[in-house]
Amino acid sequence: MKQSMKLFYAAHTCALASHIALEEAGAEYVAIRIDFGADEQRKPDYLAINPKGHVPALVTELGVLTETPAILAFIAQSFPDAGLAPFDDPFSFAKIQSFNSYLCSTVHVAHAHRMRGYRWADGQAAIEAMQRKVPQSVGSCFSLIEKEMFAGPWVMGATYTVCDPYLFTLSQWLEADGVDIHKMPKISEHRLRMMGRPEVARAIAMETRSEV
Amino acid sequence: MKQSMKLFYAAHTCALASHIALEEAGAEYVAIRIDFGADEQRKPDYLAINPKGHVPALVTELGVLTETPAILAFIAQSFPDAGLAPFDDPFSFAKIQSFNSYLCSTVHVAHAHRMRGYRWADGQAAIEAMQRKVPQSVGSCFSLIEKEMFAGPWVMGATYTVCDPYLFTLSQWLEADGVDIHKMPKISEHRLRMMGRPEVARAIAMETRSEV
Repeated sequence: MKQSMKLFYAAHTCALASHIALEEAGAEYVAIRIDFGADEQRKPDYLAINPKGHVPALVTELGVLTETPAILAFIAQSFPDAGLAPFDDPFSFAKIQSFNSYLCSTVHVAHAHRMRGYRWADGQAAIEAMQRKVPQSVGSCFSLIEKEMFAGPWVMGATYTVCDPYLFTLSQWLEADGVDIHKMPKISEHRLRMMGRPEVARAIAMETRSEV
Repeated sequence: MKQSMKLFYAAHTCALASHIALEEAGAEYVAIRIDFGADEQRKPDYLAINPKGHVPALVTELGVLTETPAILAFIAQSFPDAGLAPFDDPFSFAKIQSFNSYLCSTVHVAHAHRMRGYRWADGQAAIEAMQRKVPQSVGSCFSLIEKEMFAGPWVMGATYTVCDPYLFTLSQWLEADGVDIHKMPKISEHRLRMMGRPEVARAIAMETRSEV
């Protein structure tokens, strides 16, 4: 399984979290870019892989996995030597799942109202009303993370886990979402420290080198 | 740990999924009702337990867990005899996590635009525009589940897992969301079969018996 995985991604999406985790795990994989500009995620070839028409999708020998928290848990469990999640400790593992669930169900969703408001309302006025709220809703999420959830120096404390690439990925969008990251010193420092990891730099370079 | 857990819930919320799972696991726990009518979820006593001001929250000897997919994974791993998730099979476990991530990040979110639109936009017109879209957005999610994700007779196939109480819980809201469940025979049949389980009936009875 470890030699045949394929990660379907698009640049500047949450797929980066899974991409970084594959690098951290030392996995052998192929990264395949989906061109959102050409609406490739909604074409039959890709819908046969992921009927949701979203990225990321991780193709394994056993089948396809979607949804970032699930892909991250799978990578962590499949490459135990990388120590990305403690599967022998139900409470600690659940804390990681809890953090990543918050990111997918609340933080990413708040952000998505800036670019993908058409999912939840029709009409330009409603879509613009959603866009206006994004700095506040995304800002509240990150303030809560900064104050209540971030142990430091990594999300869960002394040990780097699959929470770190996921938080890092969503924190990349703060400026465009109109949130001042400088008011969040822990998240700001975390983002810088993540940029210094060679695994992170490699994943970002792979995703952006093919951009026109 | 198994004797001191407390589940904070409110009736008619996604906390029911965790409540059912505790019953299925045979756990010893206390269920504590949070009164949304009195805005109890936003008062200091409860915010000290869950700073997000949401339910469910599961208080364990080791600390508090929030977010349904994490609570469900914790219950499954803490009570392995109940067989609610295969922790020794990374791919099958990730499939469960993927399904539950979809429920929390996409299905529950689509539904929440009917009652909690204020999270994502200000102004009555935008909130009403969101409400109008709910039958379509929730309907699309459940159609995808019916066609692509539901193996049958349980969500993952022959084995009942923590996906089943979570899907059941969200399917309770279909009529109020304006979605015709009769167009989804698998989900409709699943909901009926879940109602027949004594664990499900017990959890629902506990949550509704104190209603005025």
